[in-house]
Amino acid sequence: MYLLIDEKGRKYLVKGNKDVHTNYGVISKESLNERNIGRIIKSRIGKKFFLLKPNIIDYIEKAKRGPQAITPKDFGLIAAYTGIRPGSRVVEAGTGSGILSMFLANIIMPEKLISYEVREDIAEIARENFDRAGIGNIEIKIKSIYDGIDERDIDLIVLDLAEPWRVIEHAKNSLKIGGYIVSYSPSIEQSKKFHRKLDGFVAETRECLMREWNLTVMRPHSRMIAHTGFITFARLVHREG
Amino acid sequence: MYLLIDEKGRKYLVKGNKDVHTNYGVISKESLNERNIGRIIKSRIGKKFFLLKPNIIDYIEKAKRGPQAITPKDFGLIAAYTGIRPGSRVVEAGTGSGILSMFLANIIMPEKLISYEVREDIAEIARENFDRAGIGNIEIKIKSIYDGIDERDIDLIVLDLAEPWRVIEHAKNSLKIGGYIVSYSPSIEQSKKFHRKLDGFVAETRECLMREWNLTVMRPHSRMIAHTGFITFARLVHREG
Amino acid sequence: MYLLIDEKGRKYLVKGNKDVHTNYGVISKESLNERNIGRIIKSRIGKKFFLLKPNIIDYIEKAKRGPQAITPKDFGLIAAYTGIRPGSRVVEAGTGSGILSMFLANIIMPEKLISYEVREDIAEIARENFDRAGIGNIEIKIKSIYDGIDERDIDLIVLDLAEPWRVIEHAKNSLKIGGYIVSYSPSIEQSKKFHRKLDGFVAETRECLMREWNLTVMRPHSRMIAHTGFITFARLVHREG
Amino acid sequence: MYLLIDEKGRKYLVKGNKDVHTNYGVISKESLNERNIGRIIKSRIGKKFFLLKPNIIDYIEKAKRGPQAITPKDFGLIAAYTGIRPGSRVVEAGTGSGILSMFLANIIMPEKLISYEVREDIAEIARENFDRAGIGNIEIKIKSIYDGIDERDIDLIVLDLAEPWRVIEHAKNSLKIGGYIVSYSPSIEQSKKFHRKLDGFVAETRECLMREWNLTVMRPHSRMIAHTGFITFARLVHREG
Repeated sequence: MYLLIDEKGRKYLVKGNKDVHTNYGVISKESLNERNIGRIIKSRIGKKFFLLKPNIIDYIEKAKRGPQAITPKDFGLIAAYTGIRPGSRVVEAGTGSGILSMFLANIIMPEKLISYEVREDIAEIARENFDRAGIGNIEIKIKSIYDGIDERDIDLIVLDLAEPWRVIEHAKNSLKIGGYIVSYSPSIEQSKKFHRKLDGFVAETRECLMREWNLTVMRPHSRMIAHTGFITFARLVHREG
Repeated sequence: MYLLIDEKGRKYLVKGNKDVHTNYGVISKESLNERNIGRIIKSRIGKKFFLLKPNIIDYIEKAKRGPQAITPKDFGLIAAYTGIRPGSRVVEAGTGSGILSMFLANIIMPEKLISYEVREDIAEIARENFDRAGIGNIEIKIKSIYDGIDERDIDLIVLDLAEPWRVIEHAKNSLKIGGYIVSYSPSIEQSKKFHRKLDGFVAETRECLMREWNLTVMRPHSRMIAHTGFITFARLVHREG
Repeated sequence: MYLLIDEKGRKYLVKGNKDVHTNYGVISKESLNERNIGRIIKSRIGKKFFLLKPNIIDYIEKAKRGPQAITPKDFGLIAAYTGIRPGSRVVEAGTGSGILSMFLANIIMPEKLISYEVREDIAEIARENFDRAGIGNIEIKIKSIYDGIDERDIDLIVLDLAEPWRVIEHAKNSLKIGGYIVSYSPSIEQSKKFHRKLDGFVAETRECLMREWNLTVMRPHSRMIAHTGFITFARLVHREG
Repeated sequence: MYLLIDEKGRKYLVKGNKDVHTNYGVISKESLNERNIGRIIKSRIGKKFFLLKPNIIDYIEKAKRGPQAITPKDFGLIAAYTGIRPGSRVVEAGTGSGILSMFLANIIMPEKLISYEVREDIAEIARENFDRAGIGNIEIKIKSIYDGIDERDIDLIVLDLAEPWRVIEHAKNSLKIGGYIVSYSPSIEQSKKFHRKLDGFVAETRECLMREWNLTVMRPHSRMIAHTGFITFARLVHREG
């Protein structure tokens, strides 16, 4: 796979097996080769493009995704407040388009991320996203996490579900002491219901607003994402027995 | 090391070799043992505490740090927009209190993080923070990164410096094609100067506002951090030769 | 009344009938006279002060107030989204410290603002704030607005109450068609309850985050107010009969 | 003029002299009469509309405007931090589409707002906006405020100009002691230049982020305006002589 970046910073993720048609003209497939990485290549109408090898962030950015998908600012927060690292044992539900899965799997590798998803058709889209990105350490289970968690000694359970409170009891048995459930909810009411059911956890709820600046004119861009989700970080601090 | 959490959620990082004096009474050193992890322990005046093994985030939170230190929301953004992972080759300058170093090293382990710091006294505080957290994969170089970068084939260079633009030329030779310089600056004017000197990079500048909610009363907390720094993500897309 | 501003921008609201003791030394009462307005005056230890006539904003800023009081960004929003002006007929409840009352009365003068407050002791503090500011067009009614609104043909009803939904039915009869109820609530749950009871209104809920910049160092200040209240603007668009 | 509001809350400002064609069907001109104010009227396909008399905010919302025009959150802030009221003497430059002019004039009436604008074609659009809204107390001067301010004893000068610093010296002679220059700039660099030239003023720079909530699903809307302008409030505290 190759990554093309045009003059406007737009990215094109391509296989390199055929010509690429862009708003700035056609890039011939012959240009797309290892020797040209880091070089400026030109379209047939003379426009400049940069050629790179894509990284995980490019694959995440270009993944097929739903309209309400979690954004990088949010999964950054998850990394920053849970301290996941190579070898961390992480369970996730639901998989959705798999973009959060890719971010988590990328950090915990070679450990395998376990991702629960009830719908096989959605899982299939996620698997395509993983394959394209070359990520091998994700296992999707076609199963509702509301019915239980098979894994034990887990460091982090991440939930992007409509009824996260239904996972709390299962999580208590699956998590290590000191481990986290992180629940991501668009509605503050879901967060509240989740929060009220927590017992044996210390919890905090955060939201993150990210703003991008145009440093040429020294001002923020005019529009931004106002909201993706509220993120509750619940750490298991107590378990009976 | 042990982590005590009191009723208000306040954390105490302790060695376990002596009694702990808190606002909620004294915890005897005998309570601080492996068997009590995850149990509720009580101070001499009967107040409840949770006992955990600290993780990297606890160590970062409790590290000796300067007043202007980078916060988790910011280093989460760095992870989210650069895709670092086990084995990533990362260089950082300056080390400061080392809290960003710890976050980065935790993700890229077992790869060693190289951290440039000109002041030996500051490096010493950082090393104490690393030792306490049990992090072994950070090497501090007492050297100004303005004078050059020894490493090659780097995925990410993170700068928390007054004059980040002085690193750009060195970075070009050190970075892999597609790698990043991320520069964190409190002042938008520093960001501008850095941005204007970039050549051969595609860059974006972001800032992040994090707000915490009290779900018991369903409102955000009254106060928040309004600003830490502007973060410029510059990706090397072109190199002559 | 006079307004003194010291080198740090701190304000002192004084009567001018005695010496003023500040962190920057004593200002003699003789300095506090009309001729010195706009001049630099000095404390006994030689520190510079500016001397002004206070305006309504100074009185609001210096009013005795509760900890959760509404802030200027919020009452600015009320002016901006309701279009109040000289002669607008406005009812408010509860009075509290009266700072919102002062802002509203200042704009609608010479029309009288009617302000409902159940507690005579609180009303007394508000009246002192009004007297000091020289505002004559506010009438406090010691009465619960939950029991009814005496006034008719009202342009705007502003509520800063725990149970604003109890005012909706009364408001329908008091408001002009096209008039507004604006309800300010710290908790989003109160806003929801208010919103759900609205019938015959078109409503929007807003919150406002204000950030202050230090242009000397070109960065925002480090701390800010994260939250005061959610403001629901409900406009009466339909009335039976 | 009449204001129609459809089921989605969209507004239509109409004269009432002809049928109105909307996405929800045609409203007959016969429906648009005083007796129907506050009643539900129906389009030919049976969709419900509310009929109101427009207020100043409706006229501002519906005014012809440029893409970068100031928004209500911003002019609210100006009212909240300057304390303008009936009779305040206010000068503004440039007029632009006149939406800020309308807001200011609405509050200071019957006092006349003086608005400087260099371009007659732009002034003409503003005048149309004023006429439609029935605002009589605005006088546009076709003149550059950089060349001087004719008025004296001014409470507030509001600038929405590319080079606001060129007005400072003129403002010093025009403002009352204690009066304000408020400068609105999209770029923080313009704000800085303005701020550095201030002498004899106490100044603060603010920006305002407004977020709207959907209380049906209890979450903020997905998108928001990230930036309009930085607003510097400079108060004249000292004048030689």
